Amino acid sequence: MDRRGPGLALERGLIARIAKVYETWGFEPLETPAFEYADALGKFLPDQDRPNEGVFALQDDDDQWLALRYDLTAPLARFVAENFDALPKPYRRWAAGPVWRNEKPGPGRFREFWQCDADTVGAASPAADAEMIAVACAGLEAAGVQRGGYQVKFSTRKLLDAVLENIGVAAGAYSTRLVVLRAIDKFDRLGRQGVELLLGDGRKDESGDFTKGAGLDAKQRSAVIDLVTAGAGARGDVLARLAKIAGETAIAELREIDASLSALGVDDAGAAIDPTIVRGLEYYTGAVFEAQLIGAGGANFGSVGGGGRYDDLVSRFRGERIPATGFSIGVSRLAAALQVQAAAKPDGPVVVLVMDQARVADALGMAAELRAAGVRAEAYLGGAGMKAQLKYADKRAAPVAVIQGGDELAKGVVTLKDLKLGAKIASELGEDREAYARAREKVQIEAPRGQLVEAVKSMLG
Amino acid sequence: MDRRGPGLALERGLIARIAKVYETWGFEPLETPAFEYADALGKFLPDQDRPNEGVFALQDDDDQWLALRYDLTAPLARFVAENFDALPKPYRRWAAGPVWRNEKPGPGRFREFWQCDADTVGAASPAADAEMIAVACAGLEAAGVQRGGYQVKFSTRKLLDAVLENIGVAAGAYSTRLVVLRAIDKFDRLGRQGVELLLGDGRKDESGDFTKGAGLDAKQRSAVIDLVTAGAGARGDVLARLAKIAGETAIAELREIDASLSALGVDDAGAAIDPTIVRGLEYYTGAVFEAQLIGAGGANFGSVGGGGRYDDLVSRFRGERIPATGFSIGVSRLAAALQVQAAAKPDGPVVVLVMDQARVADALGMAAELRAAGVRAEAYLGGAGMKAQLKYADKRAAPVAVIQGGDELAKGVVTLKDLKLGAKIASELGEDREAYARAREKVQIEAPRGQLVEAVKSMLG
Repeated sequence: MDRRGPGLALERGLIARIAKVYETWGFEPLETPAFEYADALGKFLPDQDRPNEGVFALQDDDDQWLALRYDLTAPLARFVAENFDALPKPYRRWAAGPVWRNEKPGPGRFREFWQCDADTVGAASPAADAEMIAVACAGLEAAGVQRGGYQVKFSTRKLLDAVLENIGVAAGAYSTRLVVLRAIDKFDRLGRQGVELLLGDGRKDESGDFTKGAGLDAKQRSAVIDLVTAGAGARGDVLARLAKIAGETAIAELREIDASLSALGVDDAGAAIDPTIVRGLEYYTGAVFEAQLIGAGGANFGSVGGGGRYDDLVSRFRGERIPATGFSIGVSRLAAALQVQAAAKPDGPVVVLVMDQARVADALGMAAELRAAGVRAEAYLGGAGMKAQLKYADKRAAPVAVIQGGDELAKGVVTLKDLKLGAKIASELGEDREAYARAREKVQIEAPRGQLVEAVKSMLG
Repeated sequence: MDRRGPGLALERGLIARIAKVYETWGFEPLETPAFEYADALGKFLPDQDRPNEGVFALQDDDDQWLALRYDLTAPLARFVAENFDALPKPYRRWAAGPVWRNEKPGPGRFREFWQCDADTVGAASPAADAEMIAVACAGLEAAGVQRGGYQVKFSTRKLLDAVLENIGVAAGAYSTRLVVLRAIDKFDRLGRQGVELLLGDGRKDESGDFTKGAGLDAKQRSAVIDLVTAGAGARGDVLARLAKIAGETAIAELREIDASLSALGVDDAGAAIDPTIVRGLEYYTGAVFEAQLIGAGGANFGSVGGGGRYDDLVSRFRGERIPATGFSIGVSRLAAALQVQAAAKPDGPVVVLVMDQARVADALGMAAELRAAGVRAEAYLGGAGMKAQLKYADKRAAPVAVIQGGDELAKGVVTLKDLKLGAKIASELGEDREAYARAREKVQIEAPRGQLVEAVKSMLG
């Protein structure tokens, strides 16, 4: 996707404001290359659902396979493994950049999109997870999402592990656990009934496709459903319910996250425990997070980021297990959601017209004067006449056009056109010719050439 | 290359400041994807020197060839061709981003590096070329290069065309012109004598490799050498000399650029005419620019950017000829040059130590208080003891460490350590134990817990 103008400026502004938050929280910037060696990246392929074909790969002149990063976490793991001894521990880094997925593009789904991540590597403490949730809240607020306009939901894999153990699904039953995780992940979309089918024999969707289930019996299913429906309301209440369902050991981590969140000033509206949050990827080993935008009346506008604890990722490279936790904000998605709200089109530069190609230097000089006074300005540099130049100024969303034709030059003045006011009265008074004519007097004024800057500033003012 | 911390922050700051200049001059941002369809990019391959193999290419699932952009100009040409009717004309855009070259990497030569470009498409006027030079000057100054610390040198292809016509080399003698261009391009490195050989039969370099020359005779060579040595001193003087050598028609464009530069406030120190500037690429059709950093005593620190007029680039796509001119600042190179000058390492965040893992929430709360007051701060989230935590704070370049152990808690106070002052006196007074002990009293202070923020701010003060 090509992105330009105000939409792009909005997205860049988002990233800058989120980055400022990350910096204030003591995360330092890291930029890794777009490419990683594929064998390095391959070690981090997060999911059986996303095989090697999901990445863009090519061979370089030395026949080494390179792959474009599909997220910012795998390159971080590679970087930490490579620089472990030199890095402060814990290592706190933020990063923003494009990632690439070799998947079928579709409406709103692009093969290149931006992520903006914060991660702490080398911190096993649940306080580090809590900090990830809290910094995500601060980032979303800095991006312009009102308090109450978002919620970070979190849970931990340990809840399900405890329940599965209780109902006699062995911890080693890897594939059952995965199918259960996937079923829970669909709670949002399929509801309780759909998930129960997926926990049991399986489910046929509207198109007739059948998804094989986890094969749990009725009692087992009900235990899992109890778990995933336990999360609504204040964190303290949910913790009390979960203690009964999964046991105190399984929720110790959530209790610590809750306490840390409170210390960090994140209340129940900002972050809530929700056992339906599992995050699709296999590599999370403990806490998992997901940030959702909340519309008026509590409507869920969908996920704008997520993350969790991934204590095994760096170890795939280094042998040693290194605890890590992180949060990724989907900037493109967040920008799209916020763009709906950003109504007003920002002003373009002041445009100085050129009435006589032999006097283009005068126009350049006027634009330079305006810029020196802090006003965005440019001289028109095409070859067209006055009408086309005014159309150009409109297209650029110029608030003011500066004109100095031969008459004005002789009189030592410039004409300023207030294009915003002009557009406003044209749309409001278009029919009433007399009112239009009166109003037009304010739209176009004459100022001494020596007072160009003051006059433009007062018109912008 | 992985880039992190202050070095990366410096480069990002550069881009932000240059971008601000571009915006102030009325250029709007554009971001195109990293990939272009290879057949589109192929049409823009700028040079016989840089065949298709110079780009990273791969096939997607639909068997379409994709190539990573090797500069920001070819994607601009594709974008303009695709969106021509919707764009304001002239279309002024800036862009910053990584580009990729599939070449052997080497010391200081990477396969991925950043460019930061401004271009005006649809403006045939030399004033647009002048503006490119002027905006490059403004960008370099915003990036922190002092006036006098850089010079943008410019010329035009028309000079050489006129001289070649005078000496009887036909305009259609494409390859001769190219060999002459390449010879002139090496003036900087080989000097007058080396270039004369390349204009004549050819030149054998130190390694014994022979480069075939342009085959010009003595009189022809001397005319070209007269041209390339004509440029030193004020623009007006050089123009007078060039008028004699190449004729008034050939320098009309340079005269207009000179006048526009003066109108834009760019003096002879900021921009100079230099006929040795040809830029390697074939696609430039008129004016060419190159920005050089100038060291103390006038030493040339090398090119940090360049550009020129490329009236044929968009037409390769659209049929129609569309005049265009642009300037590209090599941000990575500029950052490397400026980094030498940026001595002081910026401060890291304030670090709140954790003396008792059961009280990590207190540390989180203190960090949150500090951040709320605008102070960068974090709590230590690893599992190590006090000594390792202080080492961590040093590694993070923390200016202050906040400590609240059991004693401090009981007394309702916090201990603040001024790590910058501590490092200073340790290096200055290391031998003088008594002075060191006295000075240490200032390094470590106790403050009531309720005055944490004020006390830290005053220590940072």
